[in-house]
Amino acid sequence: MSLTVVGSIAYDAVKTPAGARERMLGGAATHFALAASFFDEVRVVGPVGDDFDAESWATLRTRGTLTDDVEHVAGGKTFFWSGVYPTANLNERETLETDLNVFEHFEPKLSDAAQACDVLFLANIQPDLQRQVREQCTQARFVAMDSMDLWINIARASLEQTIRGVDCLILNDEELEMLTGAPNTLRAAQELLGWGLTSVVAKQGKYGAQLFTNEGQFAVPAYPLQDVTDPTGAGDSFAGGFVGYVAAAGGEATHEVLVNAMAYGTALASFNVEDFGTERVAVLTAPEIEERVAVLERITRFENRPVALLG
Amino acid sequence: MSLTVVGSIAYDAVKTPAGARERMLGGAATHFALAASFFDEVRVVGPVGDDFDAESWATLRTRGTLTDDVEHVAGGKTFFWSGVYPTANLNERETLETDLNVFEHFEPKLSDAAQACDVLFLANIQPDLQRQVREQCTQARFVAMDSMDLWINIARASLEQTIRGVDCLILNDEELEMLTGAPNTLRAAQELLGWGLTSVVAKQGKYGAQLFTNEGQFAVPAYPLQDVTDPTGAGDSFAGGFVGYVAAAGGEATHEVLVNAMAYGTALASFNVEDFGTERVAVLTAPEIEERVAVLERITRFENRPVALLG
Repeated sequence: MSLTVVGSIAYDAVKTPAGARERMLGGAATHFALAASFFDEVRVVGPVGDDFDAESWATLRTRGTLTDDVEHVAGGKTFFWSGVYPTANLNERETLETDLNVFEHFEPKLSDAAQACDVLFLANIQPDLQRQVREQCTQARFVAMDSMDLWINIARASLEQTIRGVDCLILNDEELEMLTGAPNTLRAAQELLGWGLTSVVAKQGKYGAQLFTNEGQFAVPAYPLQDVTDPTGAGDSFAGGFVGYVAAAGGEATHEVLVNAMAYGTALASFNVEDFGTERVAVLTAPEIEERVAVLERITRFENRPVALLG
Repeated sequence: MSLTVVGSIAYDAVKTPAGARERMLGGAATHFALAASFFDEVRVVGPVGDDFDAESWATLRTRGTLTDDVEHVAGGKTFFWSGVYPTANLNERETLETDLNVFEHFEPKLSDAAQACDVLFLANIQPDLQRQVREQCTQARFVAMDSMDLWINIARASLEQTIRGVDCLILNDEELEMLTGAPNTLRAAQELLGWGLTSVVAKQGKYGAQLFTNEGQFAVPAYPLQDVTDPTGAGDSFAGGFVGYVAAAGGEATHEVLVNAMAYGTALASFNVEDFGTERVAVLTAPEIEERVAVLERITRFENRPVALLG
């Protein structure tokens, strides 16, 4: 299998109650690639500027990720985001600054190799761009995408068209409800399966994630952590584990494959939040992932032992 | 086994996007008893006033629940609560009115039979009263309790003393964090297990619930429903299914028993919210409960099928 991701490569400044980083490698494609690189050879598509340094190139290439399709825009500056998580429970996030920089005029041009991918992930970017990429990857067996409330608000028609062209939508539960106008996640997912998607994933933050397919649904809690350092990139790390697992399983996204993919996505997200930016996942090992998947299996398993009910 | 619950018996006025009721039977002890009555003979302790009508007595006695310990306060009025769920997703609740009425001077006096219970549930009332009841039930093998943010704010010392005298605390996840000052539910539960509790249940509303014991933890999602009519009493119905299951299993609250109890609690809560007040659980049947527990088992099960990971 081969796996292409298109999305942002960024420098982030983040402050949380656990500490701060002035400038660290981030971006949706970066977090996705670092997670997915455990499962398959990943090809990253996205722009960077003159300020993109050697250390960042090296981190992006962790576990063999290919960066031939990372476009260096001469004279440009890399996308920059800064934000603060002000409370100890990390439930809130304030964006301080978003500088699109090289991303402002980004037109994705995929190499033949990137276009020939079997599995494709469209990270959260303007939905027209997602659709351009999706249309270039004619052989992809499984295409998943993310988005955000911004595009629901200002580019709904384009977003809807893009969603109708992919297999799987991965979105926060509240965004799924916002997108469909449904009063709950189940109804939102059912509506979206009606658009032709074969799977919908609702990210629920610290509560975990849910999967909806035409065969049924599946719920997995977040991996229990005593300490969370920086939630930035958790959703993209989840997507990297989830989509990566599908690629490793041959790109055939059966309900059973997706159920397992949910557990791997959850495990990858849990490592991501343990340290700032890419710091934890860059040094992660495969046995550590397997260990957390085993824990998730254990803490969700029950064998019904019915008691004699009255009435 | 015998099961005693102390708590409010009330009339509620509720308005949700699905409709409204001007005056319906409610209260924590009522919802608990209706759910727990599937599992064991339940004895309800709590006060009612002159206005408590024959239909309400009959509903409270559903599936054999014993009301000998329900105190009729002559000249008094039954506890009254009214509230509104203004949004379609039912995420918010506004209390319009709380009239304590007969509850204001309630001093729980348990009959010998109520005191002799094997399993005891202290629904959300003033923690001094909970402790009085707990101290009367000297033979109880399993004692669980609920509480609320109000008592954390205005009666913290008493609440803590009460918690230290029971086996299991069932509380909303945010209240657990508020009670302990912990930044997340895992840390809050660990702190509370340190107080001598043998189990802690974090209710997470539409996201489900988590169990923490000294043997480990367990997470279960909420039962997926297309339509929720009225969330009032969901937590007490959960507690009724959860504590009821423990009673039916002999009162021995092993981790394995509690894991199953979580599923039954979840199923009972899901029925409660399908209609106003007690209307759904009053006509519920045992096979319907078993069916939902089986669904919960199915939508949470995964057998890890590892793929070859790189790195």
